[in-house]
Amino acid sequence: MLERTAILTLSCPNRPGIVAAVSTLLFEAGCNILDAQQFDDTETGRFFMRVVFNRLDEAQSQEAIAGSIATLAGRFAMDYTLREVAAKKRVMLLVSKFDHCLADLIYRWRIGELPMEISAIVSNHPSDSIASTDLDGLPFHHLPVTRQSKMEQEARIWQLAQETKTDLVVLARYMQILSDGLSAKLAGRCINIHHSFLPGFKGAKPYHQAHERGVKLIGATAHYVTSDLDEGPIIEQDVERISHRDTPDDLVRKGRDIERRVLARAVLHHLEDRVLLNGKKTVVFTD
Amino acid sequence: MLERTAILTLSCPNRPGIVAAVSTLLFEAGCNILDAQQFDDTETGRFFMRVVFNRLDEAQSQEAIAGSIATLAGRFAMDYTLREVAAKKRVMLLVSKFDHCLADLIYRWRIGELPMEISAIVSNHPSDSIASTDLDGLPFHHLPVTRQSKMEQEARIWQLAQETKTDLVVLARYMQILSDGLSAKLAGRCINIHHSFLPGFKGAKPYHQAHERGVKLIGATAHYVTSDLDEGPIIEQDVERISHRDTPDDLVRKGRDIERRVLARAVLHHLEDRVLLNGKKTVVFTD
Amino acid sequence: MLERTAILTLSCPNRPGIVAAVSTLLFEAGCNILDAQQFDDTETGRFFMRVVFNRLDEAQSQEAIAGSIATLAGRFAMDYTLREVAAKKRVMLLVSKFDHCLADLIYRWRIGELPMEISAIVSNHPSDSIASTDLDGLPFHHLPVTRQSKMEQEARIWQLAQETKTDLVVLARYMQILSDGLSAKLAGRCINIHHSFLPGFKGAKPYHQAHERGVKLIGATAHYVTSDLDEGPIIEQDVERISHRDTPDDLVRKGRDIERRVLARAVLHHLEDRVLLNGKKTVVFTD
Amino acid sequence: MLERTAILTLSCPNRPGIVAAVSTLLFEAGCNILDAQQFDDTETGRFFMRVVFNRLDEAQSQEAIAGSIATLAGRFAMDYTLREVAAKKRVMLLVSKFDHCLADLIYRWRIGELPMEISAIVSNHPSDSIASTDLDGLPFHHLPVTRQSKMEQEARIWQLAQETKTDLVVLARYMQILSDGLSAKLAGRCINIHHSFLPGFKGAKPYHQAHERGVKLIGATAHYVTSDLDEGPIIEQDVERISHRDTPDDLVRKGRDIERRVLARAVLHHLEDRVLLNGKKTVVFTD
Repeated sequence: MLERTAILTLSCPNRPGIVAAVSTLLFEAGCNILDAQQFDDTETGRFFMRVVFNRLDEAQSQEAIAGSIATLAGRFAMDYTLREVAAKKRVMLLVSKFDHCLADLIYRWRIGELPMEISAIVSNHPSDSIASTDLDGLPFHHLPVTRQSKMEQEARIWQLAQETKTDLVVLARYMQILSDGLSAKLAGRCINIHHSFLPGFKGAKPYHQAHERGVKLIGATAHYVTSDLDEGPIIEQDVERISHRDTPDDLVRKGRDIERRVLARAVLHHLEDRVLLNGKKTVVFTD
Repeated sequence: MLERTAILTLSCPNRPGIVAAVSTLLFEAGCNILDAQQFDDTETGRFFMRVVFNRLDEAQSQEAIAGSIATLAGRFAMDYTLREVAAKKRVMLLVSKFDHCLADLIYRWRIGELPMEISAIVSNHPSDSIASTDLDGLPFHHLPVTRQSKMEQEARIWQLAQETKTDLVVLARYMQILSDGLSAKLAGRCINIHHSFLPGFKGAKPYHQAHERGVKLIGATAHYVTSDLDEGPIIEQDVERISHRDTPDDLVRKGRDIERRVLARAVLHHLEDRVLLNGKKTVVFTD
Repeated sequence: MLERTAILTLSCPNRPGIVAAVSTLLFEAGCNILDAQQFDDTETGRFFMRVVFNRLDEAQSQEAIAGSIATLAGRFAMDYTLREVAAKKRVMLLVSKFDHCLADLIYRWRIGELPMEISAIVSNHPSDSIASTDLDGLPFHHLPVTRQSKMEQEARIWQLAQETKTDLVVLARYMQILSDGLSAKLAGRCINIHHSFLPGFKGAKPYHQAHERGVKLIGATAHYVTSDLDEGPIIEQDVERISHRDTPDDLVRKGRDIERRVLARAVLHHLEDRVLLNGKKTVVFTD
Repeated sequence: MLERTAILTLSCPNRPGIVAAVSTLLFEAGCNILDAQQFDDTETGRFFMRVVFNRLDEAQSQEAIAGSIATLAGRFAMDYTLREVAAKKRVMLLVSKFDHCLADLIYRWRIGELPMEISAIVSNHPSDSIASTDLDGLPFHHLPVTRQSKMEQEARIWQLAQETKTDLVVLARYMQILSDGLSAKLAGRCINIHHSFLPGFKGAKPYHQAHERGVKLIGATAHYVTSDLDEGPIIEQDVERISHRDTPDDLVRKGRDIERRVLARAVLHHLEDRVLLNGKKTVVFTD
């Protein structure tokens, strides 16, 4: 059935009749709504919606439905996306030396938990630095970087993203800060995992900062990358309890578990078109 | 605006066009959808929906809209409820000696967190047994019970519920088991808090059972009361971590916190018409 | 048995033989160790210990044991406290208009969950502002404050603390910032609840800051008060999940639950001598 | 320093002087206590202790200290273990088709998070059934089993355990029930992960049972294997929130995350000698 199922996400200025218009369009086109969620941001007056629908036997063609939606979107001034569920997103994974998030994402992909295609794996270190992850059969690219070669290396990343038709870039503990230029090009389709509960402990060595401050919980944050470091729209966060006994090394160890599950959830939400941008924030239509 | 806002909940056999029909009805009646959530139970083929809407200035009358909804409900074989948000539910609280849930619900009601009216407080113990709760100004009824007088006492509870136009009965650590007859009369509108993570540790003294078994988390469960003890549809559950150091008394103490927050959440969900019955289970449309 | 039970807490430079010396002293004095926990801070080389013991029938006198401990403490350069469990700490509660933490602490005290005596309740608002808490029988003091009268009002608080032999001051959502002078006088015995997951969202209106930033979890922090606002040693923290649907008002509502349980835990830990200061951090010997 | 560090665990009938005797022995032998935790089970009168210590330069020999401890253990009727931290435990991993726990344990071992040696990996399915785990360089054994060959296959497992000097057997989603005989031989050194929050949903297909019952949280339980199925002493448990939207397949997916982190924690606790058996329960001296 997946091949007849699509996901529509939209946002527009709120006004009466949006739900009626969308649901009537789909009904009259011979579609059945499988899931729908909506949100009115009363502060900004903006309306957000995600609809999953499938085409029944008597449905109009995929192209006809897409055309009707485009017309409707024009009428309501909607930003929208429409994607067949069967058309999996293509994802480029960037990593440095710590490979626990990379290994986790690859494992979840191998067992079918993450509906994506891996377009490329890129590291600023050679593949034998990533010793604990099974990269067998995956397109690995070693793109080393120095302060001098940063712009050039980013240009190659960007070129590779285009060549591989990458839809999403995931910084899976990639320890380089993207330039403003590349951040802008990847706006809304580049997810980073930061190893702290933002906005606490921005910047470098957050676990050491947390240890220094004596907090009782540590966390991780998955967010879209923007040129404003560690300030991008947050997609998912989680925490775990620690105690005075935990050394910075213990925090790093406990943090790995939080990082990988927070990043995996954020990536899954993005792959399923559950995350809509709302200014500097996100709307996340979870289950 | 609350006085022009209503909540519609419905369930019916699933088929294409339900969302379109409901949303179009409300749009054409001059209403604006503030929130809508839906769920298809693909196992049973049943569809569930909750819609919050307000009447705009040009809207049809409240009665006209209610009439249209009734007609629609007939067409789709819907079970439905329609309630003005301003019409708060009337709640009867039953308690025995442990009053932490009662005190908590009353406090939340006093500060405006629970949108309800307290129709009656009933205990099988006199009010001075409930020493730590401020019952000032509340309609307290002492209805003692013995094995012999149980039917008679329950008859008085039922009579009191009717006289006070009670919409919901909350068993806030009421340590008597309701008879099958009263359970049936209160079906879907009587919430109990059980001090275990059901289905583990059914029956009496669950904290002692948990201690005996050596579990590492304890929990509490809020559920609708049915004649099948501790088997009613579950509304909300939560747990907390314990250790080998915790005595049964410690579990009772830690359990109080879980019980009161689980019960408060379940009651709030019910008061806001977020809980729909689905056979022996519930659909809970949380935020 | 409580009247024969005492708690010893100590910290000193780490060196071999401390545990042996303490446990041998207690054994030879006719005492039985009921619980003992220790922690070596390998960064600072400081050792921390908490021992609960009771005097057996053949034990030395309370005074003799206290004398031996004092001698030992001198030998190891220990900072230490020794308290009979039966001697409950006397606690002054400060509150402004939001009384959920106050009501919660008083309820827990009434049912015997918090082993303390309430020495005074102080508010900068009159008692009828604290409408939802049952203050019956409790020593309430209205000490209004303006920018001009702040020093004078704090002097009265300090005087009251001394007159009532207060051991601990709890700022239960007291919305005034204590002066550096009073903070210093109360060092290590004044607990505040801050309504954010520090160090995120310091300062005023943290729930609004959290909403603005779009975080996915909110929290609360109980910490000792120091002259460095929101930077005092953290005793306890907790969080709850929120979503894009939550308005600032929702965060305030959900936050109340976190605040009261975090503050109650921190106060309980302090009352049981489980919290030892370690520079700008704490050692918390939980169960 | 690890090569001069050892862990002592003990349990014995409680009586005054145990801590003093142990700590004085170690002090006089030239050792420094790095960590110590204790627990009195007041119900059974049994005392439990875990001590981590290292030998200073002037310490007695390892053998001499072991001899002194053996003598002390005789005097107090102690059950005890004494292990050099540098002597890692040897672990056999058993798996069937679902390999998420296996892959997780292997990854944690590869990055140095689990201090163990993998003595063998055993499956009742061939290695190509375990497609998503990198078994490169690991001693894999395919030991197929049928109802008829069960005793024989278990004999081979037992033989392999002995040949490989296995200290711990981990059932990492091994879907065969061990016989009473093998369970008895492995008592206290065989850990299973059960995919439910025991004692709820014992037996087969617990996620389907959970879905059927409509619970709001699902969990996993790591426990020692005994001949009493799903009733062995519990080491660790955890849960995650689910909703009415989750199908049994969703529960399986969410459950994988809980299973792997619960099992990893239990294995780590066992490897660090933090788990002591206490009848049908455990004492777990966590950080």
